[in-house]
Amino acid sequence: METMKDLELFFTRGHLDYRPGVTVDCAIFGYHDGELKLLLVKNKILTLWCLPGGYIKKGENLDKAAARITAERTGIENLFLKQFKTFGDLGRGNTKAFDPENFFEITGLRIEDYEWLNTDAVSVGFYAITDIVQARPNADFLSSECCWCPVDKIPELGFDHNEMVKEALFTMRMHLYHFPIGKNLLPQKFTLKEIKLFYETMSGKELNATNFPNKLISLGLIEKTNEKRNIGAHRSPTYYQFNSTAYQQALQEGLVLV
Amino acid sequence: METMKDLELFFTRGHLDYRPGVTVDCAIFGYHDGELKLLLVKNKILTLWCLPGGYIKKGENLDKAAARITAERTGIENLFLKQFKTFGDLGRGNTKAFDPENFFEITGLRIEDYEWLNTDAVSVGFYAITDIVQARPNADFLSSECCWCPVDKIPELGFDHNEMVKEALFTMRMHLYHFPIGKNLLPQKFTLKEIKLFYETMSGKELNATNFPNKLISLGLIEKTNEKRNIGAHRSPTYYQFNSTAYQQALQEGLVLV
Repeated sequence: METMKDLELFFTRGHLDYRPGVTVDCAIFGYHDGELKLLLVKNKILTLWCLPGGYIKKGENLDKAAARITAERTGIENLFLKQFKTFGDLGRGNTKAFDPENFFEITGLRIEDYEWLNTDAVSVGFYAITDIVQARPNADFLSSECCWCPVDKIPELGFDHNEMVKEALFTMRMHLYHFPIGKNLLPQKFTLKEIKLFYETMSGKELNATNFPNKLISLGLIEKTNEKRNIGAHRSPTYYQFNSTAYQQALQEGLVLV
Repeated sequence: METMKDLELFFTRGHLDYRPGVTVDCAIFGYHDGELKLLLVKNKILTLWCLPGGYIKKGENLDKAAARITAERTGIENLFLKQFKTFGDLGRGNTKAFDPENFFEITGLRIEDYEWLNTDAVSVGFYAITDIVQARPNADFLSSECCWCPVDKIPELGFDHNEMVKEALFTMRMHLYHFPIGKNLLPQKFTLKEIKLFYETMSGKELNATNFPNKLISLGLIEKTNEKRNIGAHRSPTYYQFNSTAYQQALQEGLVLV
């Protein structure tokens, strides 16, 4: 087992490589064609699924750590990333899914011997959004599997990660009203029906017929192209596209889609 | 100087009392009668104003630490408190306003001797909102002054606290659309003009005549009373009040004021 050495190095030398007491956990949402999923990893030490995450390297800030972790797990760089909440309850590192005896048998390591792993770490939660079809889920040395799970079928997760998922969804859905979203998730040219389906999937609820699309048009975030989708003589919906300048500006400054 | 002993105890024994590497900083907004202010403290060690904040006690979670710090600085318990962002850039603890030689002359202490104070702490930002008239600003042993400053006149602050103020304002203003607000800040009975002024002050911009008030009415968060303000025979506006049940529920679940 080649990764056993990685695991041992992590335990014995991690305090030299990582910032103490702080981790990053990432709720990586995946969208494709009306489906919203979440990327989960099966932790080798636990018997439960978890959100991807990890310690922050010395020399990294929070954003860089989140960008590194999401890029490693999805194969995609520069994902849209936002903090959703920081978690610091006492004992949040404990989880019934960890069996120290079983772990010792497999690895020969005892977590209690490594003081740096035994403080209650605060975890900064980031969410990211990616296209399911573009992503290449990748397990790391601490996890055996990494795959997508529909957001309405999340199983019991390790640590406080079920609460994290709830908070990530709440914040992502609030941000739908305050940041532009959809570039790299929708085709370059899309119909109003497609962007409506996208917003309904992300928000998890049915929307008024023209709610988000009309507001995006009136704010100049999406604009008509000269092309139509050819689906029959009398029903050929117009294609729209994002206006890159307006999109970038709104990403920086935020907006109010009301 | 009685607080010199507190300061020395903080330096020498703080690592025993506080969780390492993590602090809480609080943007405490104050509202009264169309004015929005922010509570600042003058740090004794620095020469600049800062946000109130501090380390988290062992045994405390993040929410409790923020509640303790905001209660100590304002004299008011149970303020509305929300996280806005966590700050973890490298070197964020450095500030040009700190003069180690001057500090040594005053205190006889050298910060570099206290390892627990020398790691880059991550700071979890919380914002709170209180009534300026109800609050009793209180300096702590690390600060010489504590007072209100209009949000459009914030001076240069220590550390990364100017960025914190910007982020706190952004998040508080986003939350206006997603959480009920105003209880304990407006009189128990208020006119639509008063609640409109309140929302304009909090959001920092002029609003459509009926924007927030009408949405609050349609969601059942505020309701008409039988009373009118007596300001003349032909112009006596009706008093409104919050519906406590709807308010509490929306506080828990969030809402979308669009």
